[in-house]
Amino acid sequence: MPKLTDVPKRILIGRALRSDKLGETLLPKRIALPVFASDPLSSVAYAPGEVLLVLSIAGLSAYHFSPWIALAVVVLMFTVVASYRQNVHAYPSGGGDYEVANTNLGPKAGLTVASALLVDYVLTVAVSISSGVENLGSAIPFVVENKVLCAIVIIVLLTLMNLRGVKESGSLFAIPTYIFVAGVFIMIAWGAYRGIVLGDTMMAPTADFEIKPEHAGLSGFALVFLLLRAFSSGCAALTGVEAISNGVPAFRKPKSKNAATTLALMGGLAVTMFCGIIFLAMATDVRMAENPATDLISNGKPVGESYVQDPVISQVAAAVFGDGTFFFVVLAAATALVLFLAANTAYNGFPLLGSILAQDRYLPRQLHTRGDRLAFSNGIVLLAGAAILLVWVYGADSTKLIQLYIVGVFVSFTLSQTGMVRHWNRHLKTEKDPAKRRHMIRSRAINAFGAFFTGLVLVVVLATKFTHGAWVALLGMVIFYVTMTAIRRHYDGVADEIAAAEERPDEYVRPSRVRSVVLVSKLHKPTLRALAYAKLMHADELEALSVNVDPAETKALKAEWERRGINVPLKILDSPYREITRPVIEYVKNVRRDSPRDAVMVYIPEYVVGHWYEHLLHNQSALRLKGRLLFTPGVMVTSVPYQLRSSELAKKRARKRQEWNAPGSVRRGPVEKGAKEPAGKSN
Amino acid sequence: MPKLTDVPKRILIGRALRSDKLGETLLPKRIALPVFASDPLSSVAYAPGEVLLVLSIAGLSAYHFSPWIALAVVVLMFTVVASYRQNVHAYPSGGGDYEVANTNLGPKAGLTVASALLVDYVLTVAVSISSGVENLGSAIPFVVENKVLCAIVIIVLLTLMNLRGVKESGSLFAIPTYIFVAGVFIMIAWGAYRGIVLGDTMMAPTADFEIKPEHAGLSGFALVFLLLRAFSSGCAALTGVEAISNGVPAFRKPKSKNAATTLALMGGLAVTMFCGIIFLAMATDVRMAENPATDLISNGKPVGESYVQDPVISQVAAAVFGDGTFFFVVLAAATALVLFLAANTAYNGFPLLGSILAQDRYLPRQLHTRGDRLAFSNGIVLLAGAAILLVWVYGADSTKLIQLYIVGVFVSFTLSQTGMVRHWNRHLKTEKDPAKRRHMIRSRAINAFGAFFTGLVLVVVLATKFTHGAWVALLGMVIFYVTMTAIRRHYDGVADEIAAAEERPDEYVRPSRVRSVVLVSKLHKPTLRALAYAKLMHADELEALSVNVDPAETKALKAEWERRGINVPLKILDSPYREITRPVIEYVKNVRRDSPRDAVMVYIPEYVVGHWYEHLLHNQSALRLKGRLLFTPGVMVTSVPYQLRSSELAKKRARKRQEWNAPGSVRRGPVEKGAKEPAGKSN
Repeated sequence: MPKLTDVPKRILIGRALRSDKLGETLLPKRIALPVFASDPLSSVAYAPGEVLLVLSIAGLSAYHFSPWIALAVVVLMFTVVASYRQNVHAYPSGGGDYEVANTNLGPKAGLTVASALLVDYVLTVAVSISSGVENLGSAIPFVVENKVLCAIVIIVLLTLMNLRGVKESGSLFAIPTYIFVAGVFIMIAWGAYRGIVLGDTMMAPTADFEIKPEHAGLSGFALVFLLLRAFSSGCAALTGVEAISNGVPAFRKPKSKNAATTLALMGGLAVTMFCGIIFLAMATDVRMAENPATDLISNGKPVGESYVQDPVISQVAAAVFGDGTFFFVVLAAATALVLFLAANTAYNGFPLLGSILAQDRYLPRQLHTRGDRLAFSNGIVLLAGAAILLVWVYGADSTKLIQLYIVGVFVSFTLSQTGMVRHWNRHLKTEKDPAKRRHMIRSRAINAFGAFFTGLVLVVVLATKFTHGAWVALLGMVIFYVTMTAIRRHYDGVADEIAAAEERPDEYVRPSRVRSVVLVSKLHKPTLRALAYAKLMHADELEALSVNVDPAETKALKAEWERRGINVPLKILDSPYREITRPVIEYVKNVRRDSPRDAVMVYIPEYVVGHWYEHLLHNQSALRLKGRLLFTPGVMVTSVPYQLRSSELAKKRARKRQEWNAPGSVRRGPVEKGAKEPAGKSN
Repeated sequence: MPKLTDVPKRILIGRALRSDKLGETLLPKRIALPVFASDPLSSVAYAPGEVLLVLSIAGLSAYHFSPWIALAVVVLMFTVVASYRQNVHAYPSGGGDYEVANTNLGPKAGLTVASALLVDYVLTVAVSISSGVENLGSAIPFVVENKVLCAIVIIVLLTLMNLRGVKESGSLFAIPTYIFVAGVFIMIAWGAYRGIVLGDTMMAPTADFEIKPEHAGLSGFALVFLLLRAFSSGCAALTGVEAISNGVPAFRKPKSKNAATTLALMGGLAVTMFCGIIFLAMATDVRMAENPATDLISNGKPVGESYVQDPVISQVAAAVFGDGTFFFVVLAAATALVLFLAANTAYNGFPLLGSILAQDRYLPRQLHTRGDRLAFSNGIVLLAGAAILLVWVYGADSTKLIQLYIVGVFVSFTLSQTGMVRHWNRHLKTEKDPAKRRHMIRSRAINAFGAFFTGLVLVVVLATKFTHGAWVALLGMVIFYVTMTAIRRHYDGVADEIAAAEERPDEYVRPSRVRSVVLVSKLHKPTLRALAYAKLMHADELEALSVNVDPAETKALKAEWERRGINVPLKILDSPYREITRPVIEYVKNVRRDSPRDAVMVYIPEYVVGHWYEHLLHNQSALRLKGRLLFTPGVMVTSVPYQLRSSELAKKRARKRQEWNAPGSVRRGPVEKGAKEPAGKSN
């Protein structure tokens, strides 16, 4: 029976999932689209502006190159979408780029992709939140006046939300995303109608400004370089496209086909919105500059430091709908919300990738366990910390952060597509069916073109952005790469060390007898329980052991022992320095020295308590003793718990923690039962 | 054979102590005096100055009251020394004021004394270091210009030294203390010789200054109040007198007699030095003011903020020996060193008192263990943190800190002496021998006068200093008191809960059979060892348990299990969410539900590793599982350790930690073997 306090939660996030209900949570396309596409779709909120911004360096005249750059971005988007449609067919398991690179190009390429993706998740948070704050700021001035503060507050809120474990739900994504998409389409349509049919002159708020070119009259190589830089910035529209390839298992069947369709839909929507906004920006004479304070000229004077440059999407909306109108505010709100959702996807993606990496022993094993709250939390906090640092350092300026953003994406695109080419080559070697061969050859061509094009963009991005901040992203990648390599090396070393030799296991049964020792400090219920349990275990020898720290207490213990007639011999160890650990360790070592074929089993009565501070008051000596005993060969340590009343509290807390559902489970899909083997209870 | 690197350590602090060598470490009087008296003797470095400082409030004319105040301090000192000589005879066990108050006045009085002493230890550090820095500053200007920084650096150094475990050694204390005492006596003698025999006019550096009285022409009640305040400040000379009564067990036999003699010696030295310095200060026209910047007038103008008021001892030394002369510098250095040693005594006293309080369950039990490095470290860090905070807040100004200092000492004095009166009353009820009765009545009279006098001083101190800072000390005492009461209440509650009922212990043997479960993830050496050990234990049932987190791995495990022909049934638990904890807990619960009289023993193979970061990479799932299992009734958890190669490192570290000697062991003396019972290995 659900508690009363559960009701609002149930309403908000739906019934808690039972494992047998997993099937119901598979996503139909209409939900999968917003769940996976909030990141790439939201990037049209900033990508068009970045193109104009870079072009402005060469002055207003350079703006007329923007349709060409838009065209290049469109071609790139179609290439990438086409390529990834091959991926989802070939790798329906949801490993994404990491799996593709790892399988086809080897672990180093896989790890490079993983490092790139981890850096990218951090940047997704930083860029999306910063851009969201800027969009929100176009409607609410306070927000833009305290950009860094607001961005950090939103990151902290998102973090708390994810730590609490608000489960991702499809409709949470669907509503704002569809409002955003619809809003942008209405804006484009209404703008086109007003401009073409009504012949209105729509003016962006910045239409009257002049732009002071930082480098007037660029030509030749310098112009090409600038255009390439503008193109690189426009490529920000492609971030997040790979998300669907990680999420294939979450789709309804036929999974791969549905995922591919969703990819195509997403690509089509993104491209239309991107071009539409660029087109409207040109039509309404939007003016943006990299350094607005000095380079935007209003009435012959620079606008100065106090000027806030609104995002292109909100300037266009102001021109089309009118500043401050209902539609304007709704679109600004929807844009900000979609950008925050895009950031939220990184909160799910980061730990999920972490769990895959943990499976391959590049990260601590415990991250592998899905839905493990503690492991998940560590990932979340790491992600949030890094994002806050970036937002802080770069003043929540999306333009500056985007310089770092695109490297990781294109490293991952390029390696993944190269891997796909290898994949087809390998399959073509064995495939005989001509129809299938034709299909594969076609796929290979698409992926090869994808690899070539994204590789080219990667070179362009590196060349044009390295000094502008891309080096920071590369440094981050190197740090992840080195750390994960070191962890893997450690695990491999340990695996070698503990690999079982090929003898029969019975040869390991070196000890022949067990001597049980129950540690006793006082005669109370925990001790009596430990004694009773120890007796049950039929050891070859059983004795109780107490350390004489206080002669009076020891005397009382002995008297009580005899009075109760406990039929286990009680041994008292002297301890002139009132230590507990040393005498016990030395006693155990002596036992082992005297009879090396005896194993020693030490029973320690432990209090189970409810509050953290109670831990400080109990069990500390026992814990330390246990730590030392584990270093002594031939010793086992058994904790015999005694549950104090206060432990009920901790039990409840632990149960609650266990029932927690990890965010991101919707987009990852359920574990395939019997994917490789029907693994029921058996043997 | 000692390692080469041990040689310097051996030279510095002597051979490591073995418990059978404890007898050798008992202190002769000539060493006990400096070990215990560095705190009270060093206080003559600041106490005389404080008297002059307070008197200056009423102007220069009030200085002529200073001999009378010195006389009052002398009388008080003799009273306190005489009283404590009774204590060391009556309580040779070293419990000190806490034991006396606890035994005779009940636990609340005992706890009050303990709180007062704990606060006092913190203030000993803060005051002594600040004063030491001021004395050092009279020779090295840099030090006094960066007082707070220097004081904090010295506290940090002392802390590190004590954390590392530099053992207290008698000669470490003896040399600087004797140099300091000798230096002060030479100064007094040389000053008297120059003044009386040679008829020199000795001038302190401040002799030419005028003092602007803050309240000129005080009379009546106001004057009395000021004199009482000056007396309170002079009482700073008495801090630390009780140290000897805590250290009786460290003395050679006859312990009590030697301790009493040392007390008398210490009192005589302190009084002579205190009076000598006051006398020289008067003779050399030392001028001190509470606010030197405004109240000291040089050539008709205030000396201003840049003026640094040197301690009275260094002003006198400058007058007698000449500023910057060899003797001057030696005395300044010895003074600073003795003050730092006085601070160091608090580093030993604080954890030692903590261990006594832990024995009475006012503090966590593990502090009880003597020489436990971890417990000791916590005390040290708490002490250092509080002292640094005080030094920071009060700008390392010894004058301001002394306002807080004296309350705790006199709370402890008064309660201890009152307790002694009760002690004698109790003994007089039963004692028949007239000679002994006479002796007791005399002792009671001394203690009664001591209680009355110190109680009076306590009232004076509270009345004159409460608003000047004594409230901070009282607040600190309340915090300690409340915390310790809460801890005691918790322990008492738990003790009630776990108290064994009066049935025969066999009635607790509720479970009748044991079902052993070995947790298995892979078949490697740690697993094989756990299986082998589990087999040794002759449980009624034995099975291996694995959680199917990855179907491929599970399949491999089953195949390997069969290939090796392991004759233990392997059970696989499904885990659709890739959890480990939940399926195991539910399995164990089901076992208990099906057969409630079965106990379940869970064997967990554990890796023993060497570095802290390796802990992050191993055992995390096992630890968490263990934590949850302990909440399940009827379950025991056995760790079967597998020592990885890297564990050797941690083993060495642990051994080193074990051989560490707690600072303060010299002054506490060895544990009395068989103090209450000859507790050899027996039964």
